Amino acid sequence: MDTKVSAAVLARPGHVEIREFDMPPLGKGAAICRVLMAGVCGTDKHSYRGETVQYKGTENEIDLPFPIIQGHEIVMEIVAIDEEGARNLSYDGDYLKVGDRVTICPDVVCGKCWYCKNIPSYPWCEHLQFSYGNMRSCNDGNHLYGGFSQYLYIEPGTRVYKVPDGLPNSMACFTEVMCVAYTLEKAREFSGFSLEGFNFGDTVAVQGSGPLGIAHIAMARMMGAGKIIATDISDYKLEIAKAFGADVVMNSEKTTPEERIARIKAETHGRGADIVVECVGRPEVFPEGLKYLRKAGMYLEPGNFVDCGGVDVNVHEICANNLRIIGMTNHTHNCYHTVMEMMLREKDRFPWDKLFSHVFPLAEAEKAIQTSMTKESMKVLIDPWKQ
Amino acid sequence: MDTKVSAAVLARPGHVEIREFDMPPLGKGAAICRVLMAGVCGTDKHSYRGETVQYKGTENEIDLPFPIIQGHEIVMEIVAIDEEGARNLSYDGDYLKVGDRVTICPDVVCGKCWYCKNIPSYPWCEHLQFSYGNMRSCNDGNHLYGGFSQYLYIEPGTRVYKVPDGLPNSMACFTEVMCVAYTLEKAREFSGFSLEGFNFGDTVAVQGSGPLGIAHIAMARMMGAGKIIATDISDYKLEIAKAFGADVVMNSEKTTPEERIARIKAETHGRGADIVVECVGRPEVFPEGLKYLRKAGMYLEPGNFVDCGGVDVNVHEICANNLRIIGMTNHTHNCYHTVMEMMLREKDRFPWDKLFSHVFPLAEAEKAIQTSMTKESMKVLIDPWKQ
Amino acid sequence: MDTKVSAAVLARPGHVEIREFDMPPLGKGAAICRVLMAGVCGTDKHSYRGETVQYKGTENEIDLPFPIIQGHEIVMEIVAIDEEGARNLSYDGDYLKVGDRVTICPDVVCGKCWYCKNIPSYPWCEHLQFSYGNMRSCNDGNHLYGGFSQYLYIEPGTRVYKVPDGLPNSMACFTEVMCVAYTLEKAREFSGFSLEGFNFGDTVAVQGSGPLGIAHIAMARMMGAGKIIATDISDYKLEIAKAFGADVVMNSEKTTPEERIARIKAETHGRGADIVVECVGRPEVFPEGLKYLRKAGMYLEPGNFVDCGGVDVNVHEICANNLRIIGMTNHTHNCYHTVMEMMLREKDRFPWDKLFSHVFPLAEAEKAIQTSMTKESMKVLIDPWKQ
Amino acid sequence: MDTKVSAAVLARPGHVEIREFDMPPLGKGAAICRVLMAGVCGTDKHSYRGETVQYKGTENEIDLPFPIIQGHEIVMEIVAIDEEGARNLSYDGDYLKVGDRVTICPDVVCGKCWYCKNIPSYPWCEHLQFSYGNMRSCNDGNHLYGGFSQYLYIEPGTRVYKVPDGLPNSMACFTEVMCVAYTLEKAREFSGFSLEGFNFGDTVAVQGSGPLGIAHIAMARMMGAGKIIATDISDYKLEIAKAFGADVVMNSEKTTPEERIARIKAETHGRGADIVVECVGRPEVFPEGLKYLRKAGMYLEPGNFVDCGGVDVNVHEICANNLRIIGMTNHTHNCYHTVMEMMLREKDRFPWDKLFSHVFPLAEAEKAIQTSMTKESMKVLIDPWKQ
Repeated sequence: MDTKVSAAVLARPGHVEIREFDMPPLGKGAAICRVLMAGVCGTDKHSYRGETVQYKGTENEIDLPFPIIQGHEIVMEIVAIDEEGARNLSYDGDYLKVGDRVTICPDVVCGKCWYCKNIPSYPWCEHLQFSYGNMRSCNDGNHLYGGFSQYLYIEPGTRVYKVPDGLPNSMACFTEVMCVAYTLEKAREFSGFSLEGFNFGDTVAVQGSGPLGIAHIAMARMMGAGKIIATDISDYKLEIAKAFGADVVMNSEKTTPEERIARIKAETHGRGADIVVECVGRPEVFPEGLKYLRKAGMYLEPGNFVDCGGVDVNVHEICANNLRIIGMTNHTHNCYHTVMEMMLREKDRFPWDKLFSHVFPLAEAEKAIQTSMTKESMKVLIDPWKQ
Repeated sequence: MDTKVSAAVLARPGHVEIREFDMPPLGKGAAICRVLMAGVCGTDKHSYRGETVQYKGTENEIDLPFPIIQGHEIVMEIVAIDEEGARNLSYDGDYLKVGDRVTICPDVVCGKCWYCKNIPSYPWCEHLQFSYGNMRSCNDGNHLYGGFSQYLYIEPGTRVYKVPDGLPNSMACFTEVMCVAYTLEKAREFSGFSLEGFNFGDTVAVQGSGPLGIAHIAMARMMGAGKIIATDISDYKLEIAKAFGADVVMNSEKTTPEERIARIKAETHGRGADIVVECVGRPEVFPEGLKYLRKAGMYLEPGNFVDCGGVDVNVHEICANNLRIIGMTNHTHNCYHTVMEMMLREKDRFPWDKLFSHVFPLAEAEKAIQTSMTKESMKVLIDPWKQ
Repeated sequence: MDTKVSAAVLARPGHVEIREFDMPPLGKGAAICRVLMAGVCGTDKHSYRGETVQYKGTENEIDLPFPIIQGHEIVMEIVAIDEEGARNLSYDGDYLKVGDRVTICPDVVCGKCWYCKNIPSYPWCEHLQFSYGNMRSCNDGNHLYGGFSQYLYIEPGTRVYKVPDGLPNSMACFTEVMCVAYTLEKAREFSGFSLEGFNFGDTVAVQGSGPLGIAHIAMARMMGAGKIIATDISDYKLEIAKAFGADVVMNSEKTTPEERIARIKAETHGRGADIVVECVGRPEVFPEGLKYLRKAGMYLEPGNFVDCGGVDVNVHEICANNLRIIGMTNHTHNCYHTVMEMMLREKDRFPWDKLFSHVFPLAEAEKAIQTSMTKESMKVLIDPWKQ
Repeated sequence: MDTKVSAAVLARPGHVEIREFDMPPLGKGAAICRVLMAGVCGTDKHSYRGETVQYKGTENEIDLPFPIIQGHEIVMEIVAIDEEGARNLSYDGDYLKVGDRVTICPDVVCGKCWYCKNIPSYPWCEHLQFSYGNMRSCNDGNHLYGGFSQYLYIEPGTRVYKVPDGLPNSMACFTEVMCVAYTLEKAREFSGFSLEGFNFGDTVAVQGSGPLGIAHIAMARMMGAGKIIATDISDYKLEIAKAFGADVVMNSEKTTPEERIARIKAETHGRGADIVVECVGRPEVFPEGLKYLRKAGMYLEPGNFVDCGGVDVNVHEICANNLRIIGMTNHTHNCYHTVMEMMLREKDRFPWDKLFSHVFPLAEAEKAIQTSMTKESMKVLIDPWKQ
């Protein structure tokens, strides 16, 4: 194991630099992992742009504590772990050992509060400990808490998952995004013969065809969606949406909101979509998306994870159309095993390779983030060992 | 049966006049009823004030077709009915006859569209025929389509319900409001061991303690709510809220939003209410109400039935707090029998008499509407035969 | 249109004969269809064997009124229809015309009773009118009420569905069976983060790999099942189960119940299947199937549609294992459109051709029924116009 | 604190004796409590009678390890607790101290298995550690694991709950039974506009009006049941059922099954009960109870907690009537706080005093158990400090 670790540090919004850290000593119940691959997430882009307030209006409201090593979509290999870590870190009860390929749920919860005890499948913790790659400064503790680094330090209490053989590294680090798309299972929970929520054969409209949008398209298809409609401002991304199963795509820069609403009605016997998922991450798309829905349709809101301000909403229309709006932050941590198994099972059903558009070495981490902001990129990966 | 019928007509916003109509002849499958009592609804007040757009953004969007006989919370006695009406008008399959005391669901649907066939327990009809007391001009058809009248004409396709013996007229015409409060059963549908929706012992906060708010308080109590918190701008109404079971009341003119939010948190172990119901009918209260909720709490929106414009909403907070927002317009028509039976069963549990603050004769219908807009009134009734 | 109609009549259990009927005159609101293809159902086999009691313990309990024209999985072409039929017979609101290719839901309900009004998506009618191909004698009414006939007479009140272009006749008449398999959507309704019901990635075990079992395998796969396990006494059928997506198959004549239970536990981390579906149609398999389940697993019981007597059940085990048992008779009539659209969408995903093992002419209807009872047959079809 | 502890020990079925134990030393993270009151449960009677197999067909199948100190419905006062216990034992996050009045959930789970991680609100643990008063011999560990004793030893991992002020001891130790009756909330989870599960105003039939039956009657009433129907073989118990809210009662020794089924149909417009709860604890009542239900009615099975063998069931009737059968063992541990708060809130609504028919001193523990088996007793309590 190396004694020095290189990592890409977001020192402040808009400024990434490569820093070197001493390899921390292995603590009790912890593990140290060699990062194999890490994805650039939409949240990373928000932070880079200076949109740094998260969990507003909750006990966990935070303005990011720079400097931060970003990266929370990570596949790793364990290089050091003690007996306590080996026994306890795996969420699925596996005994972990050096050499195991793993991923993590980025959110670390307290396990003691009302939410942790009563709704434990969600990270709605009243005392959210931290999130890898996002909420903890690299000045603190064992420093290596983000995936844009050669190594990651796994603290006790982290939920670690073994990656099944046969799942490529790129897909493995995309698991976290697919777990967000598992919100569609939440919509299924609300389903039933009242035809609310997400039912078999339903029309699903996805606002935004970046990686999160593609994850929802793939997940919707796997769960039995009927027609899938996708929007984006990039024709490049819309082509990938189609390759993943979207039946209808619309470029939001080449159409008006009225045209998009009319098209969705036309595609749905005049009624509107059963489900709309917001994967753009900007509040402005919210009111338009509500208009895509049929009466009693369901709007899933996983995208606005970062505070980007308010937007004008007509409350009467929510009432008159009997809309169901479901805010979803983060994702459940108990779906990782299932999601990876299902990705493996359906590996040949989707053109996963198209999803991973760029791989950058660690030295080009800032370029990776900037590239991920362009119209001509999809999921951008960082391979810390690539030259 | 009389040959002339007096009715209070809303000729235009702000202008009520008593008009005389010829008694219409009984049509095939129809019924004519003597109105015993009718309630003034919040919608009636909106219309009187000139807020006349309903169902915005749906196929049924309408700007009210004046002149209108208002009044859709009605208890009546059948005075004429033919064999076809006797066999078909009762939703519950009762054979109806002259002398039966009945109420109606105001919404008349097409029965043929996708919503009517697939989600028939709601009036989400794509071709809503009309609503008694609201959507149909008294210049049309058989004229007598509102409860502020001596007689009501019941068209075929209307859903009629026999009123159980022992239920007073005042309570019988309050059935429609209690059916709106049955939205809480909808919240129960979303409940479960994920502790979303309305679970046994949950804290329910009701914004607005007018008749709709009181209906929700009584319904919440009957369904097993724990702590109930009510707000209003009238101490008079808050006293009635307490009498119906509210544990905590807050006057919104004497407290700030921050104080109200803090109080609700203090009453709920710092977390927030499980359920918030909007019974004010103004969009401005929506963003404040969202802040009353705990994470994954549910906001029920039955109140903004009439278009009163937009309001600024922070979408990130919906996401970060995992809020569930459920728009509910109108109500299900299949709960009338159950709701009346339960009101009868729990008749002595609530001080129903306090709820019915005024009874006016037909000649004072305008005064009734104006009275219902004051802080010192609760449900205002019109008895068309009172002198 | 022909004036004489040939049909295969089950005169009594074990005795089929070809009879000739006069073509009935077209009644008001009715339609007459040329049968293109009809499937032999498990119920048809029960009736042929003399197991003729259905709906026991309900208001609709019946001992079949022989003689009967069997066949309720039917694809047809309309050859006569009047204006009223054209407007009203389509469940989906299509205007029907001569030449349209259609299928029907076999159950005809009253539309007036408590179940029809309150739970209208199911045929739980208190006064079930009749079922095509099953419950009505060919001595009655317009005689032609079964699909093993050149023509079918469609009475007013029947639910008719247009078949989408591109769906082969064989698949079109399999729609009814796939609608039964839509019970899995019912299991989804019960799902949620309590992990009951049918969740994404769940293990589904199917008892019996005849056509009903295959329908459930295909439906489970389309809805996002994980591991699928199938049993049968025929290796031929188990091969088809595998071709449709079963991961594990077990021949029930070559293994013991203990071996099957052990295998299922071994395939599910020692816990048991999440969902078991009974597609054998014999009570004896019920207690064994309960033992396949994990704690809080769900047992779907669509198979025992015909009364074949009792079986010994340990109630304590239902309690101790927190089992959920869901009886499902018939199917919802509002899923036909969705099911046909999804079959068409996933046409190339499954080897549908293997499912349709035999096509017989009408003259060999008895041979068709007998063939369908053998181990070496799957769905057996009757083409009334084949020579 | 005393150094010697008296306890009633079930040495073998049918044989109770008072034994004296040394007070165990307080272990790390543990607590010692003075028992204030303990209830005799149906399970205690089964064990006394020699029906000693529990959790059959699960990983936790057990034949009771005599000798056992029975009693798992317990209210206690903490007399010794260390800092670790003070911080960790309360499920609700309270800091516990000497003098606190508490109750416990009897089931102690591993916290690590798939069930504990994924469905943690239930004790479906694959490695159930033990249950107080039932599953652990008093020869083992710290001996004092049952409530029929002067003191109880609380091991780390036990879920402890503070009892709210104002809740009498008798009601406090009845909490556990009310938590079993919270299964009705489970039925609510399955509810919805498909009118399955337990909806507002539903008819609930309870088989058996012993303490568990009464708990379900009270819970059903608190949650908004309509008509409640109760059966028992004791007129004494049926009188108490009526006092708690049953509208109709039937003595099963004075009526035939056919009469009871006919009466229930007559009380429900000919359809049958919406919900039936089995509170007798014998398999024989299961088939009869299924016949009480309407189509798609739900049967809750919390009663057969102990293996008493099999019974003949007609599977076709489960299918034809679309029955939903929900096995429920034990209860959720996250409802204790809510249940106690609601009992306190509705304290004056029910004649709780009638429920507690006898209080015996510890020396008469065997008489207490025998008394609880008679027709003229309801919940029998043991006060270990009564002379």
